[in-house]
Amino acid sequence: MIKAGIIGATGYAGSELVSLLLKHPDVEIVFLGSSSQQGVVFSDIYPRYRSLCDLVLSESDIVKAAEVCDVVFLALPHGLASSFVTSEILKKVKVIDLGADFRLKDVSVYESWYKVSHNGRAVINQAVYGLCEIHRSEIAKTNLVANPGCYTTCSILSLYPLMKEHLADPSSLIIDALSGVSGAGRSAKVANLFCEVDESVKAYGVASHRHTPEIEQELSLAAGMDVVLTFTPHLVPMNRGILATCYAKLLEGVDEKAVKDAYAKYYGKEPFIRLCPSLSETRNVAGTNFVDISLRIDERTGRVIVVTAIDNLVKGAAGQAVQNMNIMFGLDEKEGLI
Amino acid sequence: MIKAGIIGATGYAGSELVSLLLKHPDVEIVFLGSSSQQGVVFSDIYPRYRSLCDLVLSESDIVKAAEVCDVVFLALPHGLASSFVTSEILKKVKVIDLGADFRLKDVSVYESWYKVSHNGRAVINQAVYGLCEIHRSEIAKTNLVANPGCYTTCSILSLYPLMKEHLADPSSLIIDALSGVSGAGRSAKVANLFCEVDESVKAYGVASHRHTPEIEQELSLAAGMDVVLTFTPHLVPMNRGILATCYAKLLEGVDEKAVKDAYAKYYGKEPFIRLCPSLSETRNVAGTNFVDISLRIDERTGRVIVVTAIDNLVKGAAGQAVQNMNIMFGLDEKEGLI
Amino acid sequence: MIKAGIIGATGYAGSELVSLLLKHPDVEIVFLGSSSQQGVVFSDIYPRYRSLCDLVLSESDIVKAAEVCDVVFLALPHGLASSFVTSEILKKVKVIDLGADFRLKDVSVYESWYKVSHNGRAVINQAVYGLCEIHRSEIAKTNLVANPGCYTTCSILSLYPLMKEHLADPSSLIIDALSGVSGAGRSAKVANLFCEVDESVKAYGVASHRHTPEIEQELSLAAGMDVVLTFTPHLVPMNRGILATCYAKLLEGVDEKAVKDAYAKYYGKEPFIRLCPSLSETRNVAGTNFVDISLRIDERTGRVIVVTAIDNLVKGAAGQAVQNMNIMFGLDEKEGLI
Amino acid sequence: MIKAGIIGATGYAGSELVSLLLKHPDVEIVFLGSSSQQGVVFSDIYPRYRSLCDLVLSESDIVKAAEVCDVVFLALPHGLASSFVTSEILKKVKVIDLGADFRLKDVSVYESWYKVSHNGRAVINQAVYGLCEIHRSEIAKTNLVANPGCYTTCSILSLYPLMKEHLADPSSLIIDALSGVSGAGRSAKVANLFCEVDESVKAYGVASHRHTPEIEQELSLAAGMDVVLTFTPHLVPMNRGILATCYAKLLEGVDEKAVKDAYAKYYGKEPFIRLCPSLSETRNVAGTNFVDISLRIDERTGRVIVVTAIDNLVKGAAGQAVQNMNIMFGLDEKEGLI
Repeated sequence: MIKAGIIGATGYAGSELVSLLLKHPDVEIVFLGSSSQQGVVFSDIYPRYRSLCDLVLSESDIVKAAEVCDVVFLALPHGLASSFVTSEILKKVKVIDLGADFRLKDVSVYESWYKVSHNGRAVINQAVYGLCEIHRSEIAKTNLVANPGCYTTCSILSLYPLMKEHLADPSSLIIDALSGVSGAGRSAKVANLFCEVDESVKAYGVASHRHTPEIEQELSLAAGMDVVLTFTPHLVPMNRGILATCYAKLLEGVDEKAVKDAYAKYYGKEPFIRLCPSLSETRNVAGTNFVDISLRIDERTGRVIVVTAIDNLVKGAAGQAVQNMNIMFGLDEKEGLI
Repeated sequence: MIKAGIIGATGYAGSELVSLLLKHPDVEIVFLGSSSQQGVVFSDIYPRYRSLCDLVLSESDIVKAAEVCDVVFLALPHGLASSFVTSEILKKVKVIDLGADFRLKDVSVYESWYKVSHNGRAVINQAVYGLCEIHRSEIAKTNLVANPGCYTTCSILSLYPLMKEHLADPSSLIIDALSGVSGAGRSAKVANLFCEVDESVKAYGVASHRHTPEIEQELSLAAGMDVVLTFTPHLVPMNRGILATCYAKLLEGVDEKAVKDAYAKYYGKEPFIRLCPSLSETRNVAGTNFVDISLRIDERTGRVIVVTAIDNLVKGAAGQAVQNMNIMFGLDEKEGLI
Repeated sequence: MIKAGIIGATGYAGSELVSLLLKHPDVEIVFLGSSSQQGVVFSDIYPRYRSLCDLVLSESDIVKAAEVCDVVFLALPHGLASSFVTSEILKKVKVIDLGADFRLKDVSVYESWYKVSHNGRAVINQAVYGLCEIHRSEIAKTNLVANPGCYTTCSILSLYPLMKEHLADPSSLIIDALSGVSGAGRSAKVANLFCEVDESVKAYGVASHRHTPEIEQELSLAAGMDVVLTFTPHLVPMNRGILATCYAKLLEGVDEKAVKDAYAKYYGKEPFIRLCPSLSETRNVAGTNFVDISLRIDERTGRVIVVTAIDNLVKGAAGQAVQNMNIMFGLDEKEGLI
Repeated sequence: MIKAGIIGATGYAGSELVSLLLKHPDVEIVFLGSSSQQGVVFSDIYPRYRSLCDLVLSESDIVKAAEVCDVVFLALPHGLASSFVTSEILKKVKVIDLGADFRLKDVSVYESWYKVSHNGRAVINQAVYGLCEIHRSEIAKTNLVANPGCYTTCSILSLYPLMKEHLADPSSLIIDALSGVSGAGRSAKVANLFCEVDESVKAYGVASHRHTPEIEQELSLAAGMDVVLTFTPHLVPMNRGILATCYAKLLEGVDEKAVKDAYAKYYGKEPFIRLCPSLSETRNVAGTNFVDISLRIDERTGRVIVVTAIDNLVKGAAGQAVQNMNIMFGLDEKEGLI
C-alpha cells in the first residue's frame, strides 16, 4: 500500500483527493494536514466522510508528512509550496503539488503574474509539468510534479494537436472558458456567497488571469514558437465543471479531416480523453477524470471551434494528481479513477 | 389608454410582456391569444398573475385582435407571424413581432437559415428592425416592428460602435454568448428538464445558430461592408440572462481611449445602456431593460474584449418590445420600464 | 414626497427596500446609512442600481437620519435598533424596524431567546407589531413599527384564522418551513458559500429558532390562550422565498367548509393575500408582496395542512415595511407595491 | 460474475443502476432494455457513459432478459412489472423491481391508491419488501424483491425504532419531506422544465401521495397496530436527494436517552446508516448509499424531530437495489457500494 498524505486537505481540491484516494485500491491515507483546522476531525468539517475518513487533521508540516508518507499532495495557496519543498524532502518522498508554484519554468514569469517572489528555485528544475497526456514519460521519472491548473488542463488539451501539427495560426487563439464555483475555493468571501453567484454569470480576470502564462508555456512548447493568446474565464452557477470553447483560425488548406486526424493521433488511445461526436457538456464528466473534446469547423469564417469539458476538481485537480501518482509509482494509470 | 393584445401569450416572452404591460401607466391589456390554451384563464397557467391578470385566453386570431387593439404583440414560433401579418392588418393596428419572421431584410437569407418559405413578402418592406438604439427614427414611423432576438440585441450593441467607427477588423469578430434557459422556451422537451440542465453547461448550435445572420446584417450595415463572424451560444443553469463576451482585433493605432470614446459617442445618452467600469454580470440587469456594457483591452494580443449583459426576456424580448411601442406611440421611451 | 432613510442599507433586506422605494411614487430616498461601508457609493456595492440610486452611504446615525427624513427604516442585526431608537427620535420621525428588537412584547422572552439585554425598554411600549393584516389600525397610530420576521409573517398568517376561530387544537401546531438563502444575510460565512448550499437541503435551528416566540406571541393573542408549537426551518438552494407547510389537528366537527369560511372571513378582502385553489409555490410570489395561502384537509388523520408562500425579502421584510409605511402615512396600502 | 439486466434502463433510476453495476466487482451488465429507445446505444442517450457502457438497448422483454441474466432489475412505470413477472420468470432469474407493483401486501390498497388493477397476484406472495435493514433475512431467501420507494425508505427508517419500541404516539406522526427533481423522472413535462422548477419550492400530492400506504404498512408492522399518518412531499430545486423531517409525540416518560438508545439498538451496526450528531444534509449522502439520521427533542412540546437524508437515486432506488442483490446472492452487503 502506498502511504499518502495531503497538506491543505480541507479545501475543495483536498477534499476531492480524499474521496479519490479512499477508493484507490493501492493507497492508504495516513496524513491530513491543515494550517487552519489542526486538531479537528476531518469528517467534522466534511460530514460526507463520516465513517469513511475520520482522521484528525495534523499541522501543515511537510517534514512530518514526509516521515510517514510515500507521497505527499500539496493543495495550498500559491507561494507556500515553493517554501515547503526542498531537496531533502524530495529525497524522502514524492511530491505532487496541486498549486501554481512549480508550473512555470521561468521564475520571472511566475513572479510577474503572481506578484510574489519564488522560494523554490533550488528544486524547480526537478519539477515536471504534470499534464499526463503530454509529459507522461518525464512524470514517471521525477519526484516533483506540478499538477496543472483546472482551466489550463482543459485549454491546453483543447489546442495542443492544432499547435503540435501546425494546423492553425498561433496568433489567432482565443479561449473562452466557463467554470463552476468550486474553482474559487472554500474561503469565506461575499463574492462567492450563494446569493451573489446564483442565477448570474460573469466574466472575471479578463486579459489578466494567472492561468494564461501556463497555457502559453505549454502551447509554445508544442508549436515550437511563442504563442500569445487571449483567455477569458467566466463564473457560472454550478458547483463543478469547466467548459472551454476555443477558437483558432485554420491555416490555408487545412480541412476538417486534417483536424480530426490530428486529435485522433494524439488522443485516440488516451484512456481519459474522449473525442465526442456530440458537443461536450460538463455534466458528462462530472465526478470523473474524463476530458470530453468535441470540435466543429466554421466554414464561413475558416475557424475551428473546440469545445472541451472536464471536472475542475477531478481532471482539473485531484483526479489528475492521482493519475500522476499512478504514473510515478508505475501503477496502471486508470487505477482508482475508472 | 393604449389597448394592447398579445398573441402567443403563454410562452415565457409573452408572459413577461403581460408583466411589463400591467405596470405600464398608459396601457390596458385587452386581448391574450393562444393556439394551445384557448379558453383557459391566463392566471391558471401562470398563477403568479392571479388577481393581476385573470383574462381568458382567446384563439390566436390577429384579425379579431386587430378589431379591439391599438397594438398587437406577436410572440410566436417562426413561420407563423409572416402568415398572420397582412397589409390590411397593418392599416388597422401597429404590430410588434417578437419572432424572427421580419428581422432579415433578405428573404433568401431567412429561408436558407430557417428552412421554411416566407409568407410575408408583401409586408416585409414595411418592417423595421426594432433595435431601438440604432433604428429609433424609423421605428417611430412604421406600423411593423421586427423585435430583435435576445442574443442579437446583446451582440449587436456590443460591437456596433467598433464597426461604425471602423476601429476593429470586421473579419476578426467572435461572439461567445451564455444564455439562461428561458431562452429555450416553454415547450416540454427532455433537453430542458431541470435534471438535464442543472449543474451543467454546454455549447450548442456551434457555427450554425440562426441569430448569426441577424447579427451580421446589422453589423454589416454599420461597417458599410460585409461582416462574417463566429457566434457561439451556450446554455447555463439559470433562468434568465444573456452574457456576451465579444472579441475583436483592434486596427493599427486604435487605443483604449478611442474605443471608449466610440462607446460614449453612441451610448452615452441612451437611457437603457450603461457603460460599466466593472465587468458586466447578468444579475445586475435581471428583470430590467438595461444593457450593461463593459470593455477591456488585451494589450498583449491587440484585442478588445466587450462583455455585455442583458435580461433575455426583457431587453432581449418583452422589454424592448415595450420600448418599441413607446417609440411608435410617441411616449417617453422609458415609460413602464424604469 | 415622503423623505425616507435606510440604516443598514447594504444587506439584502436594505437593498430590497431601496428597490421598492425607488418605484414608490410618493417617496424619495434621502439617506442611506451603513456602518461597514460608509463613504462608498451604494451602486458600487450593488451595480444593479447604477443610474437608479447612486447615493453615497452615510454612517449609521439615526440622529442625523432623523434630521432629514420623515421615515427611517432600520435593517440591522438584533440588539442595535433597541439602542438607536429613543423617545426623542420618535418625536421627530417615524421608525420602521426590520429587526427583532421590538417584536416581542415581553422583554424577558426577548432576552432569553436572543441572549442579549434589551436597551429600548423606554420605547418598547410604543412599538406595534407590524403584521399589517392583523394590526392595521394600531399601525396607523404609532411612530414605531416592529416589522415581523420572514418566517413569522408566513407562519402567523397561515394559522391565524384557525386560532382566532378556535377551529384547531392549539397544542397540535407544527410549522415546517423552507427558506431561500437570502434569509441568511450577506455576511461572508463558509456555510453560505454557493458550493456549500447548492444542491443540498438541510434543517437548522430545530426546536430552537428565534422566530418561534414571535409566532407563539401572535397566535396566543389570536387563540386567547397560550400556544406552544414546533417550528422547523430549512434552507433550500434558491435565492429568495419562504414556503411554510403548517399542520393542525382540527377540532371535533370542524369540516373543510368551516375552515375555508374562516380564511375567507379574515383574508377575503386583503389586497396582498391570495387564497389559492392550487398549492402555493414560491415562484408565484417572488418579487411581490403577495401571501399565497392554500389548504388541504387530510380526512384520514383529521388534520388541516396549510401551505403558504411569500417572498422573504418582500412580504417577509422590505415589502411589508413599505406596506406599514403606507398605513402610517395614510396612503393607499398598495402604493408602490402592485 | 453475476450477469445483470436492467429493463427500463433509460430513466434516472435505471441510469444510476448502470453506474453502480459498472463499479461492482462481481457484476457484468449483459442486458439493457427500453420500450421507447430500442436499438439505440445507451451512451448516446447518456454520453456520460461513453466508453464505459456502449451497449445497444434491447426491447423491454423480461423473457429474453431472463435467458441471459442471473438477476433482472425492473425500473418501470407502475402497472408494468406486475404483468412482466410470472412464476416461470422467477424460476429462472432473480428479480428486483424498483417500481411500486409488489410493495403493498394488500392488493386492494394498491388498486385503490394507484387506480389500476394488479396483474401479478400469482407472484405477489413471493415478493419481499426490500428495505434491507428491516427485512434482510427474508430478502436473502426470495427471488422477488420489491425495492422500496425513495420517500418511503427515508420515512420508514426515520420512524421505525420509535414505533418498534413504542416510544411515540402512532397517531401523531407527520412526515414532511423534500425531494430533488430527479424523483419526478425523465419524461418531458412542462412542470419539470428547468424554468418551472428553478428558484422555487412547492408541496404536491398533499394528503394523497402514493408512498403513504407503503410507509403506513411498514410502520404498522413495526408498531403492531394500525398506523395512519400525514405525509407531505415537496419539490426543491436540486437534482437529487431527499430530506425527511419527521415529527412524533413522545409517550409519557420517554426521554432523549431512551430515544437515542432505540436508534442505536436498531441501526448502530448497520453499514449504511449513520447516526449523526449534526443535522443531516442531503449533500453529505449525495452519490452514496448512506442514510444519515439525526434527531432532536423539542422539550417545549414533547415531540421528537427526526431529520433524515438519503440520495433518492441511490439508497432510494438503485443503491438499495444493489444492496438487495448483494443480500440475495450472499455477497458482502457493501460490495460495490462503498
